[in-house]
Amino acid sequence: MTTSAPRTPARPTPRERLLDAAAGLFYRDGVNVGVDALCKAAGVSKRSMYQLFDSKDEVLAASLERSGPTYQALLLPPPDDPRPPRALLLHVFERLDLLSTSPAYQGCPFVSTATELKNPEHPASVVARAFKQELTAFFHAQAARAGAPSPETLARQLTIVFDGAGARVVVQGHPLDGLATATATVLLDAAGVA
Amino acid sequence: MTTSAPRTPARPTPRERLLDAAAGLFYRDGVNVGVDALCKAAGVSKRSMYQLFDSKDEVLAASLERSGPTYQALLLPPPDDPRPPRALLLHVFERLDLLSTSPAYQGCPFVSTATELKNPEHPASVVARAFKQELTAFFHAQAARAGAPSPETLARQLTIVFDGAGARVVVQGHPLDGLATATATVLLDAAGVA
Repeated sequence: MTTSAPRTPARPTPRERLLDAAAGLFYRDGVNVGVDALCKAAGVSKRSMYQLFDSKDEVLAASLERSGPTYQALLLPPPDDPRPPRALLLHVFERLDLLSTSPAYQGCPFVSTATELKNPEHPASVVARAFKQELTAFFHAQAARAGAPSPETLARQLTIVFDGAGARVVVQGHPLDGLATATATVLLDAAGVA
Repeated sequence: MTTSAPRTPARPTPRERLLDAAAGLFYRDGVNVGVDALCKAAGVSKRSMYQLFDSKDEVLAASLERSGPTYQALLLPPPDDPRPPRALLLHVFERLDLLSTSPAYQGCPFVSTATELKNPEHPASVVARAFKQELTAFFHAQAARAGAPSPETLARQLTIVFDGAGARVVVQGHPLDGLATATATVLLDAAGVA
């Protein structure tokens, strides 16, 4: 066995800096953040940005692609979580209830992006839809494991509850106080997911 | 009894023209529509706009205030509808399922406005929240009439389903195919609203 020097984390590339700054700014301020503000926050010149990306729309899509897995990981149980399906499904809603207590929480970033863009064919709306479909697929897999009679319908209904709870935080401006978990519980009980 | 000449509808004032154009444009294109585009669509000069309103933010709030009741009327049953609470509650979700088939439907205007503004204290977010609370109050009143054990919780849960269904249309870019009504039905059944 050879020893090697401890690896230092690689310095983020301008592309990574740009996408990380973009994800934060777009989430906080919306998709209409300008290119100047974006480049300033990232410490990247506009010239560099346009060497890396054809347009702001591409930056938006790529930044959501890059930040999406971190957001999903906040909500989903780890892949090796040994608990039964009901607990894994409720985990997502418990995390959402918890996340809603953070002052920085502005709703689901995928729903917000699609809502702001108002165009399901925008490259960032396509990315947003794919991430939402991942969440629905997780619900579907667990509902099927639990023997729910219509796992596909239950998965869609749980997604609706998830997104409606997010919308509630945005509209009301205060946390969910357990409402996401309570509502999901009603659907799981009704579907016999014990 | 005196007779009077038949009343012709009053010509819309510049204020009304501005607010109607604004409501349409903000819903279609988002809250970042500029003042120039707004005034052009309304056929009103910028000078007139600023004589009527202190800021675009005020136009946004006033336009939502003016258009909100029309949107609510699309969804709510008429006040003299004699049907029992369950039918009146499901009416809202049936209308939403139907509305989602319209290519012009871009989700709930109140949720969209709050999502785009990202500030619950913005005057238009305050208007949006009041309209959402009207919907929740309708759910609450009918749930109480039906003898649901926790009418307030049920009303909040129905609001979550309503908003999550709207988000689904925006994200997926296609109609609900009855999913709003089906999900609300599960909650009503679970609450014993027969």
